[in-house]
Amino acid sequence: MFQINDNYQKLPGSYLFSTIGKKVNEFQKAHPDKEVIRLGIGDVTLPIAPAIIDALHKAVDEMGNAATFRGYAPDLGYEFLRSTIAENDYKARGCEISVDEIFISDGAKSDSGNIQEIFSVNNRIAVCDPVYPVYVDSNVMAGRTGVYDAASETWSDVIYMPCTAENGFVPEFPKETPDLIYLCLPNNPTGTTLPKDKLQEWVDYANRVGAVIIYDAAYEAYISESNVAHSIYECEGAKTCAIELRSFSKNAGFTGVRLGFTVVPKELKCGEVSLNAMWARRHGTKFNGAPYIVQRAGEAVYSQEGKAQLKEQVAYYMKNAKTIKDGLKEAGYTVFGGVNAPYIWLKTPNGMSSWEFFDYLLENANVVGTPGSGFGPSGEGYFRLTAFGNYENTVKALERIQAL
Amino acid sequence: MFQINDNYQKLPGSYLFSTIGKKVNEFQKAHPDKEVIRLGIGDVTLPIAPAIIDALHKAVDEMGNAATFRGYAPDLGYEFLRSTIAENDYKARGCEISVDEIFISDGAKSDSGNIQEIFSVNNRIAVCDPVYPVYVDSNVMAGRTGVYDAASETWSDVIYMPCTAENGFVPEFPKETPDLIYLCLPNNPTGTTLPKDKLQEWVDYANRVGAVIIYDAAYEAYISESNVAHSIYECEGAKTCAIELRSFSKNAGFTGVRLGFTVVPKELKCGEVSLNAMWARRHGTKFNGAPYIVQRAGEAVYSQEGKAQLKEQVAYYMKNAKTIKDGLKEAGYTVFGGVNAPYIWLKTPNGMSSWEFFDYLLENANVVGTPGSGFGPSGEGYFRLTAFGNYENTVKALERIQAL
Repeated sequence: MFQINDNYQKLPGSYLFSTIGKKVNEFQKAHPDKEVIRLGIGDVTLPIAPAIIDALHKAVDEMGNAATFRGYAPDLGYEFLRSTIAENDYKARGCEISVDEIFISDGAKSDSGNIQEIFSVNNRIAVCDPVYPVYVDSNVMAGRTGVYDAASETWSDVIYMPCTAENGFVPEFPKETPDLIYLCLPNNPTGTTLPKDKLQEWVDYANRVGAVIIYDAAYEAYISESNVAHSIYECEGAKTCAIELRSFSKNAGFTGVRLGFTVVPKELKCGEVSLNAMWARRHGTKFNGAPYIVQRAGEAVYSQEGKAQLKEQVAYYMKNAKTIKDGLKEAGYTVFGGVNAPYIWLKTPNGMSSWEFFDYLLENANVVGTPGSGFGPSGEGYFRLTAFGNYENTVKALERIQAL
Repeated sequence: MFQINDNYQKLPGSYLFSTIGKKVNEFQKAHPDKEVIRLGIGDVTLPIAPAIIDALHKAVDEMGNAATFRGYAPDLGYEFLRSTIAENDYKARGCEISVDEIFISDGAKSDSGNIQEIFSVNNRIAVCDPVYPVYVDSNVMAGRTGVYDAASETWSDVIYMPCTAENGFVPEFPKETPDLIYLCLPNNPTGTTLPKDKLQEWVDYANRVGAVIIYDAAYEAYISESNVAHSIYECEGAKTCAIELRSFSKNAGFTGVRLGFTVVPKELKCGEVSLNAMWARRHGTKFNGAPYIVQRAGEAVYSQEGKAQLKEQVAYYMKNAKTIKDGLKEAGYTVFGGVNAPYIWLKTPNGMSSWEFFDYLLENANVVGTPGSGFGPSGEGYFRLTAFGNYENTVKALERIQAL
């Protein structure tokens, strides 16, 4: 008789966004006259930029023509996209990343869930708290996290690194030595990040203790301060200890287009074994490439027109971020993030819990956000608003919050 | 110090297609005047059909317009595609598969590699021999296959079910009881399949011994005989023992477009645990949906125009299959497959090994095929030719083989 992977049974329900959806639906049913503004989910709203739309149409036409049709893509992704990435995301920033260290995928969520597969199940992981839930959940499924304690909402074998206002959202080196360290910078959900010298300390630490940093740089395009690294490979020694995950979702609005990539440097080794070769094997066995038309769309992100159009999109969202941040400050809130990231992280007022504040905001301002506790125990007492909405609605939402 | 997943180190090199590529390159360098015809790789060559190209263009335009832009897709895939599949692939064949039993993915290769994750590492797998290598390789990576014996090219903990001319390519129930049974029907590489009553026996067997059948129906569109099931759910009792993997690669030429789906019936359970819920959790945690534009392309596959155009494409490839099969027979070869599948499986002449015949064919007819031994030990002494080439070249290749 077959048996299941028991680790799945250990996962607590992941009801954050469905609970939010349910509460919002109930509210709207009870108050059909109220216009609810959603600043909760991290999904983009601007349409795909014209330069990318043109590239998509062109690639679609190629697929309809026998002379230019493309079947299976190369395992690692098309050379035209990988070399464009190597040039623009790395060489232009002084990082030497070669084309065969770049693996094109269908998105950073898949990569952040799958990357743990090439490591031993006995490895200990360390995560920032609060954080994007996929890092922990994918390790739970693999059996790497021990026993769940419902009261503290923590796993016995996960090393948590609290990031709160008290430590300026800068994780401290943990007491126990981790094998894998997940860093999402700029951070989802707090919208905060580390200056480059602090990141360098993490790289030095990882090299010293023999840990691998899984560096999720999905929000890199939102960095506005010059002392923040766009890639971990801007730090010395990162190529012997870090894997970088990148996304096209937030810099180019590809949440529904699906494209990402992962960098696994050839110098990153366990003894004689190259992690680059292991990831290539994983990619070649369990994945069959991102769509040709989508890879052409990715290439257009780096064209002159594409760059100019996407700079405007990022500026649009960052104007929203400033609107939210300034508006909340004026209303007397303690606010973080929003400078190098499209997320604003606020301290709930008057000691309210994250969910109490959610209800309060929904009922009184008809604004939807995300309770910080949904991202980890240290998120309790915080709340996330996103800058991905429409500008007019964002302004309106803040007017309502200020009027409370 | 971090450690790797040791199971990856157990994988023998996967050099089949790279060895073929190298040999062909060397031959062409030595004989620049010879025109080599490739009937080796299972990739399609016809361009995407017009009805699908139109749907792609339309969806691209929607993504470029704020009013119709789509961000993150629903975890399971868009309702418009899932309901179309439920209607056309299942209801029309008398199978009751509901919309929430269908999971849209980026292709059957990903699904066939990932599906093992929801099962215990202690489960024993059974595979046909020869077979598509992803089934075994993904289980090697998960640590489910024991020790590799290089001499016999087999794993100690894998149950092999030889499919050869002697048993009419019909696998026999194994002596040891498996937990997971991989069946690819119509089969890659042999091009053969089972009649529905034989498949029913496998369903009954799986229900009796408590095994799950992972049913890969990627070549379903090529079935021409009425006594062959297009879906395993045409068999009674399959919903309590079978997961079905489906692809758009071969029926609609989506090898470079990337789309597939997996059916996990809600009745399929281990005790009280629903495998449907487990796969939903895996999908929701480690995948973020197939591209919207590609899901619209998938929908167009089932439109009236799409169906008519794709029927022609399949007929084109099956004309190639007939050309190869008839041509080989006339030349005195013993030939299998090619009736319900785009693959022709031939017995090598004069006791040649698969690789000896590869060299013989390349040197004397300048035709490239795939050595059967590359798909498993029982493939030794066989050779695969594919019907996915261009018709004129296929005819020419057969003329050359007949002239040998």
